[in-house]
Amino acid sequence: MRLKIAVLAGDGIGPEVTHQATNILRAVAELGGHEFTFVEGLIGGIAITETGSPLPTATLDAALECDAVLLGAVGDNKFNALPPDKRPEAGLLQIRQALGGFANLRPSIAYTALSESSPLRPEVTKDVDILFVRELLGGLYFGAPRWWDRESNEAINTMRYTRDEIVRVARVAFELASKRRQKVTSVDKANVLEVSQLWRATVTEVSKDYPSVTLEHQLVDSMAMHIMNIPRNFDVVLTENLFGDILSDEAGVITGSLGMLPSATIGGAVNLYEPVHGSAPDIAGTGKANPLGAILTAAMILRHSANLEQDARAVELAVNKVLDAGYRTADIARGQQPGQTPVSTEEMGKLVHQAL
Amino acid sequence: MRLKIAVLAGDGIGPEVTHQATNILRAVAELGGHEFTFVEGLIGGIAITETGSPLPTATLDAALECDAVLLGAVGDNKFNALPPDKRPEAGLLQIRQALGGFANLRPSIAYTALSESSPLRPEVTKDVDILFVRELLGGLYFGAPRWWDRESNEAINTMRYTRDEIVRVARVAFELASKRRQKVTSVDKANVLEVSQLWRATVTEVSKDYPSVTLEHQLVDSMAMHIMNIPRNFDVVLTENLFGDILSDEAGVITGSLGMLPSATIGGAVNLYEPVHGSAPDIAGTGKANPLGAILTAAMILRHSANLEQDARAVELAVNKVLDAGYRTADIARGQQPGQTPVSTEEMGKLVHQAL
Ligand SMILES: CC(C)[C@H](C(=O)O)[C@@H](O)C(=O)O
Ligand SMILES: CC(C)[C@H](C(=O)O)[C@@H](O)C(=O)O
Repeated sequence: MRLKIAVLAGDGIGPEVTHQATNILRAVAELGGHEFTFVEGLIGGIAITETGSPLPTATLDAALECDAVLLGAVGDNKFNALPPDKRPEAGLLQIRQALGGFANLRPSIAYTALSESSPLRPEVTKDVDILFVRELLGGLYFGAPRWWDRESNEAINTMRYTRDEIVRVARVAFELASKRRQKVTSVDKANVLEVSQLWRATVTEVSKDYPSVTLEHQLVDSMAMHIMNIPRNFDVVLTENLFGDILSDEAGVITGSLGMLPSATIGGAVNLYEPVHGSAPDIAGTGKANPLGAILTAAMILRHSANLEQDARAVELAVNKVLDAGYRTADIARGQQPGQTPVSTEEMGKLVHQAL
Repeated sequence: MRLKIAVLAGDGIGPEVTHQATNILRAVAELGGHEFTFVEGLIGGIAITETGSPLPTATLDAALECDAVLLGAVGDNKFNALPPDKRPEAGLLQIRQALGGFANLRPSIAYTALSESSPLRPEVTKDVDILFVRELLGGLYFGAPRWWDRESNEAINTMRYTRDEIVRVARVAFELASKRRQKVTSVDKANVLEVSQLWRATVTEVSKDYPSVTLEHQLVDSMAMHIMNIPRNFDVVLTENLFGDILSDEAGVITGSLGMLPSATIGGAVNLYEPVHGSAPDIAGTGKANPLGAILTAAMILRHSANLEQDARAVELAVNKVLDAGYRTADIARGQQPGQTPVSTEEMGKLVHQAL
């Protein structure tokens, strides 16, 4: 198996966590006799500083020639005063759009070993295994017109969806649910928004092709509550772009830390893989960052771009083992108990490597 | 003290909970020698059924002649297939707009007696006292253009804000914070949305007039997580319309049930008071509805429309006493313990009355 991976480490803790993720991928390649090659590229704040653009053409060209893109994190407070299209985040949105992946998969899993890291009661998080399918190329993120007029002191953004954009992401959700617990929960605000009415009607239509999968609709406000009260009720959660951004971060509290959460964006020319966490500039370089989100993202590369399901599971199992053995980066040390060992980013990476 | 209150009970559990709230207001009037009069009006699904319109002119005219409007809940599954402007919810949005209140105050408080009803650990919710200030007349709820074109299979909604709309609601947040714990957390998505950039710049500008109040900005996705992880960190939380809808429902898990949450909308011609919960058609008429959200909403009428702070506190204290004594409607009986007594909507209302 050969795989060419573009590594866009980005800002803040991006480089340190992607470094641990590529180490794991190298280990998997060695163990399995695969050939994984890595191509580095600039994105985000570091790209602005070095080239003036948050997504240099060289980066995009390189990414488009790879089989998968692993992105660390983008965002740097230095650029807070700039308009959205000049910020590090613009590089992220541009590459998402250019690669064309529209279905962003975000698993939210409760690890038994981490039950003390969650603000939720252990009996609430027990056995939770949710998969968010977030539409990633539509809605307020990309809708036009969009402007902030500094003369009239007015600003607008546009939430826009077409039926086709909804159909294709809904199909991904139903396909995945049919291999899981046969349930899709679609999130919208259909009691207020026309876009949500189109969303609900379209998802309902798509559901007819999947008679074995149960479809339920939830309003985004109720869902923000239900997902904390009874997370076990949910299997696949299908959302538009911004609702998925909010709810999947919220669901991070089920696992206990954003630092644990991986994501994969599929459906386009090249799949894009990113841990859910941000660039966390405050802890960059301190060794406090949790590399497990990036490592679990590497496992998603194995699953969705290399078709190496066994190896993906092996990495996930290794992560579980290391957690069970009590090793903790700072973000997951909340309920620190006897038997736990605090470790750095690098130590955590090495432990997973050994457990493999 | 004289007060004329329009009571728009609405759909589902609306009538049964507002009935308990007006009973409490009557009791307060009697005890204090005040004269409260009540005028009833139709709104929502029941208004559609009886008059064809979710907000009949008669209702609006009556409301505009009152000192305060107490709204129960609107929403009925019967009308789910209708477009947003024909649904029960349209009546709610129309009356919000017509009354002109732009600042929707939603307290989210952890009651010690209810700590077992929350999915969050007691040490996380302990002493939490958050006040959401949600902008209620702008953003995606009212922005034009808005349509669902059934030919092109496309739909759009518009998120729109002007500087003035942001200034006025920000002032309310800072005023309230200056009487509380001196902190405002403003929520936006300024790394992606132009509207949020205007929001952030404007709130920052307004904050200069309140040097004793600390302002912090949070992205809506991070906030959805922080508010579960460290709710104690927040005092006043200022949001645009949809973000406030989502986050204030989410924060309902701090108290343990939406059924406990009151709201007041101020700044317009007539203040509008509504419990946060919906019409819950599934439990309407079963005596399961929790009237405390409506009763605490009545306390907000006393505070914000009658300037009867003492009486408002007395009602809140009575609610606390009844909870401390172990009385529970179904929604707050989660961690049911020895010493708890299940009660109906009506019994709960009577108990608060007695405790007064
Ligand atoms: C950094 C930001 C633009 C991004 C988003 O909002 O999509 C992030 O929050 C995410 O969820 O990946
Ligand atoms: C019923 C609905 C239109 C309403 C809203 O979204 O504002 C409700 O969710 C609320 O929060 O008061």
